[in-house]
Amino acid sequence: MEEKAKFRFAVMGAGHISHKFCDAVSLIDECEITAIASRDLKKARKVAHKYGIAAAYDSYEQMLIDEKPDAVYISVTTNAHYDLAMLCMAHDTPILCEKAMFRSACEAEDVFRHSKEQGIFAMEAMWSLFLPNIRQARQWIEEGKIGDITLGRFDIGFQAEKNPKNRFYNPDLGGGACYDILVYAYDILTWLIGQPVQGTSVQAVYTNDGVDKTDIVQLEFPDCMGVLTATFEANLGDQEQAVVYGSRGKIVIPHAHHGKECCLYVEGEEPVTWKDDKTINGFVYEIQEVMSCIERGEIESSTVPHEMTMRTSLLFDKIYE
Amino acid sequence: MEEKAKFRFAVMGAGHISHKFCDAVSLIDECEITAIASRDLKKARKVAHKYGIAAAYDSYEQMLIDEKPDAVYISVTTNAHYDLAMLCMAHDTPILCEKAMFRSACEAEDVFRHSKEQGIFAMEAMWSLFLPNIRQARQWIEEGKIGDITLGRFDIGFQAEKNPKNRFYNPDLGGGACYDILVYAYDILTWLIGQPVQGTSVQAVYTNDGVDKTDIVQLEFPDCMGVLTATFEANLGDQEQAVVYGSRGKIVIPHAHHGKECCLYVEGEEPVTWKDDKTINGFVYEIQEVMSCIERGEIESSTVPHEMTMRTSLLFDKIYE
Repeated sequence: MEEKAKFRFAVMGAGHISHKFCDAVSLIDECEITAIASRDLKKARKVAHKYGIAAAYDSYEQMLIDEKPDAVYISVTTNAHYDLAMLCMAHDTPILCEKAMFRSACEAEDVFRHSKEQGIFAMEAMWSLFLPNIRQARQWIEEGKIGDITLGRFDIGFQAEKNPKNRFYNPDLGGGACYDILVYAYDILTWLIGQPVQGTSVQAVYTNDGVDKTDIVQLEFPDCMGVLTATFEANLGDQEQAVVYGSRGKIVIPHAHHGKECCLYVEGEEPVTWKDDKTINGFVYEIQEVMSCIERGEIESSTVPHEMTMRTSLLFDKIYE
Repeated sequence: MEEKAKFRFAVMGAGHISHKFCDAVSLIDECEITAIASRDLKKARKVAHKYGIAAAYDSYEQMLIDEKPDAVYISVTTNAHYDLAMLCMAHDTPILCEKAMFRSACEAEDVFRHSKEQGIFAMEAMWSLFLPNIRQARQWIEEGKIGDITLGRFDIGFQAEKNPKNRFYNPDLGGGACYDILVYAYDILTWLIGQPVQGTSVQAVYTNDGVDKTDIVQLEFPDCMGVLTATFEANLGDQEQAVVYGSRGKIVIPHAHHGKECCLYVEGEEPVTWKDDKTINGFVYEIQEVMSCIERGEIESSTVPHEMTMRTSLLFDKIYE
């Protein structure tokens, strides 16, 4: 019996995050990484060597031409996502693109139009939505454990090194709290609440270079509110969490963008803490989603649909209007 | 040597909160309550009996005429504050008025204009600003313990009994989360941060009667942001707190509108918890402020100036515009 061919990923970018992706792929039998490209060939070769990747390129396009991968993982900084996504579209190649996928609604519209017209899969790497503790929290909400939702909040923040040249603060690298962390807050909270967002209001504080360093977003849902806080200027510590309040209780998710726990508090009952003790690398689930969607011939994920990315892109437009 | 005459308060309203005020006055040697009035004479008599108050009235005006108190404490529900404040102004009587003092900027302007023109003291009973733990927190901020402030937040909320006739939800009694609890969040956080508010954005959820049950407010300061959450629909529990983040650390004040603690976290140092172990009744300090301001011939408190009440009244206008 012939073994089913492995799903072949290629990786664009050889920075920190590419390592986590390569590590995740190594945990999944059904896929492999066949090539990695970076403008800095040495960096690409280093990652290739570490993870046993056959080919390293200094040209993204050459990699697409030579390798014809089943999908590309775009792991470069946000500023370069649009160009590489369009390059992949030009080569009919499906993409999983690091968050924030785009800097503006205009970029998002363009890529998703190509995705739809050409029937090519495209998804933002919002890996947290696939984490077991986030899934458990949403299940509790859907089961009505906390009754009707009245309020949701998501707080995320740390003190980024105050260097105008780093990826947090450098506008040329797509720096900004909205791209780096607010995107988590928006996607995870709206996904948990599962209701349409009817109104959004944003206030931000900017650096002298015009990069947003603190964002506060109010979300209006049909019968509840949400509030998101994202900052590069405060170590939130224990206060970095998502909380969904309901008429009968609340759900607390510590460090909700990368955590392993969720806690259910129902009035009159003992609190329940649910712990994810099986996840080794949280990227595994989104990678499985990509493979499964592409195998089914879909152009988007139902968990991270184009529309979700469009909404955060519109939010970025509000912050940078 | 003749004993200095005691400062003579009269109380309008005989509900729950009037008891706490009477109790506080009983702890201060230099003042007394000489009369209490309620539309329900039985209630007034009950409080008078409990606290040894000489006179009980069913007419607010008659009490002012007969007693000529040094100041009146207005403890009725918010809907009636304006009329009683104007009545006191008409009788040249200084006032301490429960929060929220007014329902709209229009009411506030009117009373404060009279206060200024006639030289009569008027102050909102924002007692929390005088609490030792809040003072300690502000002192830490002024001393630069947490460096430059980057973000402030204030969360306050509980599940109010869902009865459209109670003081929380009944518009005829001045119900609404903004009047009952948001006012604390706004005043305490802005006072702690001590910077001018340059922009305010509000989103609220309303009951079918049009009463706000959840409010989220973004505050823009010169170089930081604030976010306030106030709700009648969620028991915030441990998350009911004020937190001020700075470049070097943070200050956390649990249940900041009536708490006794504040905690200082400075990076690289052991956390410090400051506990107020002397306060018996938190209203004492605001009462001392009223007496001291009136004795000095002032028409407003520098801690709770008219302008502070004007700003929250303008905020209410935004919520009810």
